[in-house]
Amino acid sequence: MSNVTYNAIGYAAQTASAPLAPMQFNRRAPRPDDVAIEVMYCGVCHSDIHQVHNDWGFAVYPVMPGHEIVGKVTAVGNDVTKYKVGDLVGVGCMVDSCRECSACKEDLEQYCLEGFTQTYGSPDRIDGTTTMGGYSDSIVVREDFVVRIPENLDPASAAPLLCAGITTYSPLQHYGVEPGDKVGVLGMGGLGHMGIKFAKAMGAEVTLFTRSAAKAEEARRQGADHVIVSTDAEQMKAAAGSFDFLLDTIPVQHDLNPYLETLRFDGVHILVGLIEPVEPAVDAFNLVFKRRVLAGSLIGGIAETQEMLDFSAANGITCDIEMLDIKNINQAFERVQKGDVKYRFVIDMKTLKA
Amino acid sequence: MSNVTYNAIGYAAQTASAPLAPMQFNRRAPRPDDVAIEVMYCGVCHSDIHQVHNDWGFAVYPVMPGHEIVGKVTAVGNDVTKYKVGDLVGVGCMVDSCRECSACKEDLEQYCLEGFTQTYGSPDRIDGTTTMGGYSDSIVVREDFVVRIPENLDPASAAPLLCAGITTYSPLQHYGVEPGDKVGVLGMGGLGHMGIKFAKAMGAEVTLFTRSAAKAEEARRQGADHVIVSTDAEQMKAAAGSFDFLLDTIPVQHDLNPYLETLRFDGVHILVGLIEPVEPAVDAFNLVFKRRVLAGSLIGGIAETQEMLDFSAANGITCDIEMLDIKNINQAFERVQKGDVKYRFVIDMKTLKA
Repeated sequence: MSNVTYNAIGYAAQTASAPLAPMQFNRRAPRPDDVAIEVMYCGVCHSDIHQVHNDWGFAVYPVMPGHEIVGKVTAVGNDVTKYKVGDLVGVGCMVDSCRECSACKEDLEQYCLEGFTQTYGSPDRIDGTTTMGGYSDSIVVREDFVVRIPENLDPASAAPLLCAGITTYSPLQHYGVEPGDKVGVLGMGGLGHMGIKFAKAMGAEVTLFTRSAAKAEEARRQGADHVIVSTDAEQMKAAAGSFDFLLDTIPVQHDLNPYLETLRFDGVHILVGLIEPVEPAVDAFNLVFKRRVLAGSLIGGIAETQEMLDFSAANGITCDIEMLDIKNINQAFERVQKGDVKYRFVIDMKTLKA
Repeated sequence: MSNVTYNAIGYAAQTASAPLAPMQFNRRAPRPDDVAIEVMYCGVCHSDIHQVHNDWGFAVYPVMPGHEIVGKVTAVGNDVTKYKVGDLVGVGCMVDSCRECSACKEDLEQYCLEGFTQTYGSPDRIDGTTTMGGYSDSIVVREDFVVRIPENLDPASAAPLLCAGITTYSPLQHYGVEPGDKVGVLGMGGLGHMGIKFAKAMGAEVTLFTRSAAKAEEARRQGADHVIVSTDAEQMKAAAGSFDFLLDTIPVQHDLNPYLETLRFDGVHILVGLIEPVEPAVDAFNLVFKRRVLAGSLIGGIAETQEMLDFSAANGITCDIEMLDIKNINQAFERVQKGDVKYRFVIDMKTLKA
C-alpha cells in the first residue's frame, strides 16, 4: 500500500450550520484494488442535505457529500482488472462492505451485516479515514464498488441513476414487475419520475399518485398511463383493489391506508422514501384481509446497479436533470428542499475550477 | 332445488348482550351440490366471541357461531361426487364464494373479490338466508367448501385445524418456510401453538417469543427449540438480525419494532392475529434498511385447507384441546377471554342432546 496521497478539492460543510464551501484535502493514492476517478458529474440527493445538516445525528464533519458520481478513470491499482485509464465509470452510495457476510455473498452489499461503507461520512475499512463524496474533483474507490457507465447514456443524466435510479429499479426487479402488472408510483420527484420510467420500461401499466392534478400532463410525458389525484376520495375509491405494486417515494409521513386499499390481494406496497415511524398507523386489517405486503427497500447491490445501468442504456432511460454550477450548491440545496427542481440537480464538476 | 327443510338445533345469541342459548331452527334440504353433515365436534374460536358480542359491528342476529367443524356426512345432493354418506368431513370459516373472480380462480377463496360467504352470519348466495355455524347438530354446505378429515386424525382434535390450523399453516407455506429456516412464533395460544407445530414439521428451527418465562417448558413440549422472553431487552437484543420469519399470532396491539429488529435482511413478519391499527407505529427504517417485509394473512383457501389436513395427518399434528359440554359454552367464552384454555375448547356435540 502506498502512503503517497494527492491533492484534491471539493465542497464540504465544516459544521451542521455552515454552508458548503471549497475545501482542499488529500485523496489516498490508489491501493492495489483501487480505481482513481476524475469526477465529471455528481447528482444532488436530498440525503446530501440531511447529512450536511446532521438531521440523522451521525454526521462526521467536515461532510463532503455526493453519491451519484460519474467520471473518468485516471489511474488504477496493480491488481485492478476490470477498469483502465479513460473508462467512463460510476460510483453510487457504497464504496465498500465486509464482502464476506451472508448479504454480501448474495450481492446485497447494501444490507451488509457489518454495515456498508458509505461514499461519504463513513470510516474507510482499511485506513479509518472518513470517506469524502463526489462534490469533488476526484475520488478513489475499490474496484468492486465501481460500475461501468454504458456508452450511449449521457454521462451527466446518468449520474442520478447511481442513487435515484437504483433505489427505484431494485424493488421493481426484486418483486418481479412484469408486462401487464399495474404499478402505482407515489410522488414524482427525483425517485418518483425514475420509478415511472423503470416500471414503464418493464412493461407495467403505470399510474402516478399525486396531490396535484396539475402534474398529470408531465406525468404522462414521463411515461405514466394514468394519474390519480390522491386527495380526491372518489378517484382513490375507484382504484380500490386494482394495483399489483405501489412504489412509495414520498419522503415524509403520510397515511398509507388509502393507498393500501388500492392494492389487490397479494399486492405489495414498497417504501423507498420514508424512514420515519409509519404514522398515521397502518391498519392491520388492510394487510391481513387481502394478504397484502408492506415492504421497504434500500438502494441496490453493486451487481444490480450495473444491471440497472445496462437496462437503462437498453431502454434509453436517464434522469431528467438541471445542470448546476457547484458555486451555486447552497442555493440548490434550498431549491431541493422546496421541491423546486425537475428532477435532479447534477453538478458539472468543470465549474469547480472555472 | 328442494324447498323441504328439516329441523335443527343449536346454540345462538339473540342479541349482542345475550348469552348463547339453545335455539330450534331449520336447515335447508341439500341442494344438488350440497353435503349435509351431522356435526360431531366444533372448536371455539376467539372470533366467535367477537361476533356474538358484535365487536366488529356487522353481526346479524341470531348469531350461531362455529367454524371449526368436524362431522359425518348424512346426505348428499344429486350432483355431489366427492363425498358419500358416512364420510368424515370438515368445514372451516367459508361455505361459499363467487368462484369466478381472480382470487377464487387461484384457489384463494378467502380473498374472493365479492367477499366469501362466512360459515355463520353471512347471507347465503342462493337463498339469502343468514348462515348458521357449527354450534349445532347439523350443517348443510356446498360440496366444494367441504374438506375430508384424514382417518388417522382424532376428529375432535382435528376440528380447530379448520381455522387455527389453516391460519398458521397457510402463511408458512406461502412464504416457503423450509428446513433450516429460523422461525419465530409470537404468542402461544390457539394459533401460536399450532404455528410452533407446523413450523417444526416443515423443518424450521422454531423459537417462541413470549412475555412469560414460565411458558418455556411447555413451548419445548410443543416443539419449540428455543424460547425468548420478549420483555427481556437483553434476550431481544441478542436475537437481532437472526430470524427468517416471524409468525405473529398476538391478537392485540403491540410494538412490532423490537420483533422486526430480530429479523434478518429480507425477513418477513406475518400478522395473523392483529386486525387493528398497528400502534405503536412501525418504524419504516426497520423495513427499508433491511428490505424487511410486514405482511398479513387470512385463513387459507379450500384446496390448501385439504393440503394442511393431509400434512397434519402425515406429521401427526392436531390441536391440543379441552373438550366442552355445550351447556357450558358461556363459561367457556369467559375462559377464552382470559386466555384460560390449552389451547382450544372443542364442543362435543353429543352434549347438545344429552
